[in-house]
Amino acid sequence: MPTPSPTIVDTVLRHADARLDQSRAALFELLSIPSISAQEGHRADCLRAAEWVKGRLAVLGFRVELRPTPGHPIVVGHFDGPPDYRGPRILFYGHYDVQPPDPLDLWHSPPFEPRLVDGPRGPRFVARGAVDDKGQVAMFLEALRAWHETGGGIPAKMTVVIEGEEEVGSKNLEPFLRANKDELTSDIALISDTNMWDVETPALTTSLRGLTYIQLTVKASSRDLHSGLYGGSALNSINALTKILGDLHDENGRIQLPGFYDKVLPISNAQRAQWDSLGFSEAAFLGDIGLSTPAGERGYSALERLWARPTADINGIWGGYTGQGAKTVIAAEASAKITFRMVSGQDPDEVMSQFKAFVEARLPPGATAEYEGGHGSPGVQVNADSPWVRAAQAALGEEYGKPAVLMGSGGSIPVVVSLKNVLGIDTLLMGFGLDDDQIHSPNEKFEQTCFHHGIRSHIRLLAKFAGG
Amino acid sequence: MPTPSPTIVDTVLRHADARLDQSRAALFELLSIPSISAQEGHRADCLRAAEWVKGRLAVLGFRVELRPTPGHPIVVGHFDGPPDYRGPRILFYGHYDVQPPDPLDLWHSPPFEPRLVDGPRGPRFVARGAVDDKGQVAMFLEALRAWHETGGGIPAKMTVVIEGEEEVGSKNLEPFLRANKDELTSDIALISDTNMWDVETPALTTSLRGLTYIQLTVKASSRDLHSGLYGGSALNSINALTKILGDLHDENGRIQLPGFYDKVLPISNAQRAQWDSLGFSEAAFLGDIGLSTPAGERGYSALERLWARPTADINGIWGGYTGQGAKTVIAAEASAKITFRMVSGQDPDEVMSQFKAFVEARLPPGATAEYEGGHGSPGVQVNADSPWVRAAQAALGEEYGKPAVLMGSGGSIPVVVSLKNVLGIDTLLMGFGLDDDQIHSPNEKFEQTCFHHGIRSHIRLLAKFAGG
Repeated sequence: MPTPSPTIVDTVLRHADARLDQSRAALFELLSIPSISAQEGHRADCLRAAEWVKGRLAVLGFRVELRPTPGHPIVVGHFDGPPDYRGPRILFYGHYDVQPPDPLDLWHSPPFEPRLVDGPRGPRFVARGAVDDKGQVAMFLEALRAWHETGGGIPAKMTVVIEGEEEVGSKNLEPFLRANKDELTSDIALISDTNMWDVETPALTTSLRGLTYIQLTVKASSRDLHSGLYGGSALNSINALTKILGDLHDENGRIQLPGFYDKVLPISNAQRAQWDSLGFSEAAFLGDIGLSTPAGERGYSALERLWARPTADINGIWGGYTGQGAKTVIAAEASAKITFRMVSGQDPDEVMSQFKAFVEARLPPGATAEYEGGHGSPGVQVNADSPWVRAAQAALGEEYGKPAVLMGSGGSIPVVVSLKNVLGIDTLLMGFGLDDDQIHSPNEKFEQTCFHHGIRSHIRLLAKFAGG
Repeated sequence: MPTPSPTIVDTVLRHADARLDQSRAALFELLSIPSISAQEGHRADCLRAAEWVKGRLAVLGFRVELRPTPGHPIVVGHFDGPPDYRGPRILFYGHYDVQPPDPLDLWHSPPFEPRLVDGPRGPRFVARGAVDDKGQVAMFLEALRAWHETGGGIPAKMTVVIEGEEEVGSKNLEPFLRANKDELTSDIALISDTNMWDVETPALTTSLRGLTYIQLTVKASSRDLHSGLYGGSALNSINALTKILGDLHDENGRIQLPGFYDKVLPISNAQRAQWDSLGFSEAAFLGDIGLSTPAGERGYSALERLWARPTADINGIWGGYTGQGAKTVIAAEASAKITFRMVSGQDPDEVMSQFKAFVEARLPPGATAEYEGGHGSPGVQVNADSPWVRAAQAALGEEYGKPAVLMGSGGSIPVVVSLKNVLGIDTLLMGFGLDDDQIHSPNEKFEQTCFHHGIRSHIRLLAKFAGG
């Protein structure tokens, strides 16, 4: 098959434009399924979401199955493309699972009843998963559908892998990739799970921080105690936990785990200069979330702190009496969930060992520490100088009329590490989220304009691959 | 009426012995009512418990009413006693409200379904409120009933005040005492809400720590954030809260509020010597609750730390994601409940000011602190050299065949302060709880032998008063 002519691409784009309402309706079906992978009670919903994706691929002519894992199933679909296709074999990865929607009372509408709402940038979709990652997966599926329904068929050879455990650490994905390496072998991976620079400026993400998560429980007495009768003699687990965690950072925001920064690689002067040229306004970034003073490590620019410096955040803490009014109890145990965002060079297992050493060194006599989790993936640096990055830059440049920014992201997409480790391929991170999309928060949203341009950009990128 | 003869007292005691099962059954009725004052959903139960107490007093010939307050009602009953009574007018105080029973899953039987269970010291009662304070109130009511049903009637002039807000700070009690000062004027107050020295050794409590409670909420961003996209720039409320609270104590267990110890009065050498002579085993005390190493302030004996040194305990903490699995969120806010136990000399309002100053000094830029509560009462020292203390010592000595210990308590009974401030009277703290009764904890219990001796001791004390 020859390179698709401009006329064909234009036809496909016009078809996508005309069918935008149907594309949104399809996404809303998927958003209605509460596929919360972290919560056992939503196992059947995760399966429903997987079945939904399978159905969408099947009608496009994919050979598609749900592949079981010890956790939630992985949707795998193959499409051969035109017989004379000479472009790269593409592996598109996404995830159908979502974060828990808590705290529920802060949502303006139920998280799994997607709404089309007017916003300052036009209509937006509001729902858990609107952008992360159901909305971004739907863009690619809708681009495929537009090709399928016009233009002579989907123009590229590809495998689509949509998993259901990204929000809980993707622990079954890498074993799956390993076990099915031959079946999945590809030239380039493509993921839409990142952000644009801003609503008018497309971006490719070429560096990602890693992530490791751990839950710490400090145990003291064998039961809850009356603080009057025991206070002054009995160890208080919450006092102990806060004393330990209160030491996580020093006055300058430096993380106090022993050896934590030893393997952190500094960024190059060139990279720093490129990021500085982006004119990022931390004041505006923080202003959107009701803050004004930057937190974090002193002595680094905002983008460097967000993209190239590691962090430690306590994501949850609980212990003792948390109901209405007072209860003068000394709690037997207290817990916290902590994540470390790591950068290229840091090893997740080593960070976990450092954290445990940090805790043990501060554990008061009589207290014990228990840990859960501790899984993680390191940070990633993608080769920005590849034909695939150039193809994506061209597709985005044509769509938006301006060049795509090469940026970093503070978030983690552990699969990028797995794809490199197991299949030996780089990943193209072409995403259409915005900083204010409130992913993982109440009222998560996705701008319809981003969704629409995203579909169109994927249509263009497939044309570039077919022509390359 | 003459002093009740030994024969009459013996008759009353024998009657109480014979009717112990009925006394326990009466208590179990009261224990079945979940009168949790801290929880709005139990308002009707609090009223039911008040009505129950009212009914018991009415059948004994008291003029009794429920007196409304802005919170839960106060039961007030008056009894004139014999016409020729020359003893002290007694004000008996107790409370019908109980602590919340959480964590429910640690109870071996439902907290509001009282059980009679065999223990190493014979039968015991298991239920929330078994000892604090329903069981101890019931002892007094049963002593009155034994006098009523035998011996020619209740031998003393008295007022009974049973409130329903002790577990939430008794905030409506002092205004009530003030508003009804003339009606309530008495010579001595009597309270059973404290412990014995051990199961064989009776005690009067002559010093109590004070208590002040506050809830602190640290607020940062205007919404929950993704820790990948914002970590390194946005302030984390839980990180901030743990850093503040982690500073509450230094390495030696000294509380770090500015000026906190300035007004703490050291105990006398005589008092220290008396306490030392009690042979208190902190190892055994802690061993019962699964601990071995004392926590708290260095450089003081165990009883001094428990009875005469102030403490700071975090009673509850919460923020962010606390469900199953991981959620990489930066929470907009995090909260903790904290109580300070204060000793004679410290002022609760001053301690609250010191706490707020301590928090403000550590609040990172961009964070705000909000406070709830902050009510409290100071520590108390009861005059141990009074005819009433001597009468109680005599009653307890006859009942147990050994002298009563004069001890301190780390717990707080704010009403003792109010009774002194408003009515100008001292309080006799004659209680029958044991250290291992697990008050405020799952599986709260009261030994039947303590309940039984408690009824008998109150019968004897009334005889002493009538004779005095």
